[in-house]
Amino acid sequence: MATRPSTPHVSKKVYEARLPRLREELVQLQVQLKECGFTVLLVLAGVEGAGRGDVINTLSGWLDPRGVETIAFNKPTDEERERPWMWRFWRTLPSAGRIGIYAESWYTEALRSEAHGERAQEHFESELANIRHFEKLLSADGTLIVKVWLHLSKSNQQERLRELEDDEDTAWRVTADHWKQHRHYDRLNRFAEELRTRTNQPDARWTEIDAAQERSRDLAVAELLVERFRAHLAKLKATRRRKRATAKVRPLRASGLRRLRKLPLDQSLSEGEYDVRREKWLGKLHRLTQEAFQTRRSIIFVFEGWDAAGKGGAIRRLTSAIDARDFRVIPVGKPTDEEKAHHYLWRFWRQIPRDGIAAIFDRSWYGRILVERVENFARPDEWQRAYSEINDFEEQLTKHGTIVVKLWLQITKEEQLKRFRAREKTPYKRHKINDEDWRNRAKWDAYEVAVGDMLALTERGCPWHLIPANDKRFARLEVLKVACGQIEQALNDRI
Amino acid sequence: MATRPSTPHVSKKVYEARLPRLREELVQLQVQLKECGFTVLLVLAGVEGAGRGDVINTLSGWLDPRGVETIAFNKPTDEERERPWMWRFWRTLPSAGRIGIYAESWYTEALRSEAHGERAQEHFESELANIRHFEKLLSADGTLIVKVWLHLSKSNQQERLRELEDDEDTAWRVTADHWKQHRHYDRLNRFAEELRTRTNQPDARWTEIDAAQERSRDLAVAELLVERFRAHLAKLKATRRRKRATAKVRPLRASGLRRLRKLPLDQSLSEGEYDVRREKWLGKLHRLTQEAFQTRRSIIFVFEGWDAAGKGGAIRRLTSAIDARDFRVIPVGKPTDEEKAHHYLWRFWRQIPRDGIAAIFDRSWYGRILVERVENFARPDEWQRAYSEINDFEEQLTKHGTIVVKLWLQITKEEQLKRFRAREKTPYKRHKINDEDWRNRAKWDAYEVAVGDMLALTERGCPWHLIPANDKRFARLEVLKVACGQIEQALNDRI
Repeated sequence: MATRPSTPHVSKKVYEARLPRLREELVQLQVQLKECGFTVLLVLAGVEGAGRGDVINTLSGWLDPRGVETIAFNKPTDEERERPWMWRFWRTLPSAGRIGIYAESWYTEALRSEAHGERAQEHFESELANIRHFEKLLSADGTLIVKVWLHLSKSNQQERLRELEDDEDTAWRVTADHWKQHRHYDRLNRFAEELRTRTNQPDARWTEIDAAQERSRDLAVAELLVERFRAHLAKLKATRRRKRATAKVRPLRASGLRRLRKLPLDQSLSEGEYDVRREKWLGKLHRLTQEAFQTRRSIIFVFEGWDAAGKGGAIRRLTSAIDARDFRVIPVGKPTDEEKAHHYLWRFWRQIPRDGIAAIFDRSWYGRILVERVENFARPDEWQRAYSEINDFEEQLTKHGTIVVKLWLQITKEEQLKRFRAREKTPYKRHKINDEDWRNRAKWDAYEVAVGDMLALTERGCPWHLIPANDKRFARLEVLKVACGQIEQALNDRI
Repeated sequence: MATRPSTPHVSKKVYEARLPRLREELVQLQVQLKECGFTVLLVLAGVEGAGRGDVINTLSGWLDPRGVETIAFNKPTDEERERPWMWRFWRTLPSAGRIGIYAESWYTEALRSEAHGERAQEHFESELANIRHFEKLLSADGTLIVKVWLHLSKSNQQERLRELEDDEDTAWRVTADHWKQHRHYDRLNRFAEELRTRTNQPDARWTEIDAAQERSRDLAVAELLVERFRAHLAKLKATRRRKRATAKVRPLRASGLRRLRKLPLDQSLSEGEYDVRREKWLGKLHRLTQEAFQTRRSIIFVFEGWDAAGKGGAIRRLTSAIDARDFRVIPVGKPTDEEKAHHYLWRFWRQIPRDGIAAIFDRSWYGRILVERVENFARPDEWQRAYSEINDFEEQLTKHGTIVVKLWLQITKEEQLKRFRAREKTPYKRHKINDEDWRNRAKWDAYEVAVGDMLALTERGCPWHLIPANDKRFARLEVLKVACGQIEQALNDRI
């Protein structure tokens, strides 16, 4: 772990001599940051009395406040508790070009529960995994993460707390809890060290800074920020210089493609048969979703499939079984500029439904490894990383209790052509077909490979259901059946 | 109230003949909507059994789902309960270019409480006022609001519920609550009529649609949407043709300007005096904010003032008294594109703090009547409307219990010049000054008039505090004193 050489005492004169240059560097940093379009996260943690709040105030004075956000966390709200744990952190992430100073962070809960003797080892392990994954994913995406641990020796802590207490105007800053933490200094210190060691990753290292003297402490934090920023910038420029590959799309693992091609697409259903069976399955789906919602489970449906495979129609049949207040359909199109200024998963995290609600994604995060892969919108390292990012994302959902139903609607290339032509002939369907659809169609084989890899590599959190969709009625019924099956199983598994 | 001539029965043949053209019109509507950049809200309400869900499903099939959101409301979450009532509706508003179909809306609560015999007249009146204000504000901003009441006669309702019940596959759609509402048909009908009459505004009219037959009902809703959209578009084009005035900025009410000019700016404070008194006031502010937060009050600080008046410095001194997890500083700069695609107040609504938290706005919604007025970014009708919109907004906050502290930091034109020059000389302060600041300064007189009108016209919800800020120390202390004073008073008023 990088420990900052502690400069035990910086005189006022030295401080004031260093300040102008440092402040200019910080301002320069913000100007460059805006141009480079990544996010800086400055995580501040440390022992009580080390002056986290003061550091933030000082830094806020040195930086241009329009580009900075200070983030802290209260007790989780019910909207937070009713979603996977990391949701509350995702929702606070600043946009590219901005600095987020975390007065509290994804480390606070572990530190707090240790201080109160409430920490459970098993929970701690999964918390650590979540944290590591979160930071890795962000830094891989270009985010600079600077983690600072403000250190005070036990005697320094005592001194600081006494100083504050002795002055009647600052006495309010010291609470009984501070003294309690002081008494448990050694245990907390050991735990904090373990926490730091186990979350020390190449791109999210901890730096210990001695907080015994304010001037030295504040300079050290600011200088660290400048130094890390410069290193990050240099590294990023090197990465961006790498050529984008435009190689042919080849399968990463052939089993997915085989599975896709093996799917029989010749089933069909008469209108009469469909009408009768649909009502039965809609009734069943209604009962199952009600049961899920009543037990505070949420359901996420992911609809993916070829252009014109019938996603929209299948979604409408599905939703007719669910009360309008219990679901939202989320059509996924071009991201907004706020969305573009974040990690690609951010826009999906922000749409994660609360417990007891369903969300239906008409296209989804799988765009990253389908269209973004095939069209070279994402660099190879980006889309290759996405398989595991998506698996982790879905695992977080399912561990939270969310039922994730993923459906791929499969049609033949001939069937697609027929539907494209039909759309072009029908005035009110013409908007559904454009040049892009034809361009995508021309890349059918490349897309097929990407779909195959998706099937083979993204089932860690939850399975894919392949829906034969050459016959619309058959497909719609199949969607209902598959959805019922998975929900029923998920409800039974919990009991 | 506009009642739709009910076409009691549309044959399948007629329906299918009319459909292609209607669907084409709907699609055209969406294409035009995207170009014109306003929002469409389709509010669906009506008697139980009238088929709100079915209408939504049908419409979703006819429209391009990528431009449509269906919105419904569950029981308010704690994040919603801890903010003014209308927050939950503001947060659902779709962006410009999109259609929001409200399966439930700001009318649902009133209807629900009437159905359950829980309605309180006094609460109802303030609810109505909020609703009228909300719709007026949105429609003035260009939003098209189409409100549909799906009507069924008592006997038709009975018939519909029986039909659904008799089929084992649809029986689940009917609950005991539906029958209860059927028994109270007449009372609920009278109430719904009152509700519609009292919320029937020129730009947010109700239309009753007979829902006895599905085909006729669905056609009527879709045709209404097309018709209203066309009328709205025509009206909007006429408005936009109006010339933007570039007249001189003249006071709307002279009293504000007098008040501003009367403010003595010659007070100052020595460093020693400041240091002593600051600690006292910080201590007091800390105690008062703690008390406010413990009683679940939220506090909003609004900092406005001339460029270089010292807002940032005053904010940092203020926040040094508050725990980092209890406040957020919100610097208000250029809106993002999501923000630009909404009413100008939307970006501030989305930042409204929960109960027990403070938000500090470094510039605010007052930009609408300051910079947007002076620079002609807003049309005269827009900024003139803003005074009452802002008053209503702040009234909603204070009625909810939020303490709103508004501060104008006043300096002389000479002092500003001195500070601009000092900023230009200090490398790390140079980023704080740019051409725009100099341009704004050249319009000092016009801004002064705008500030005067702000003072005179926006105190309905809460008062303005003028802070003499030629002396930074004096100003910073004054901010603390004024904040303490208003918070203390607000806490006492509640007891």
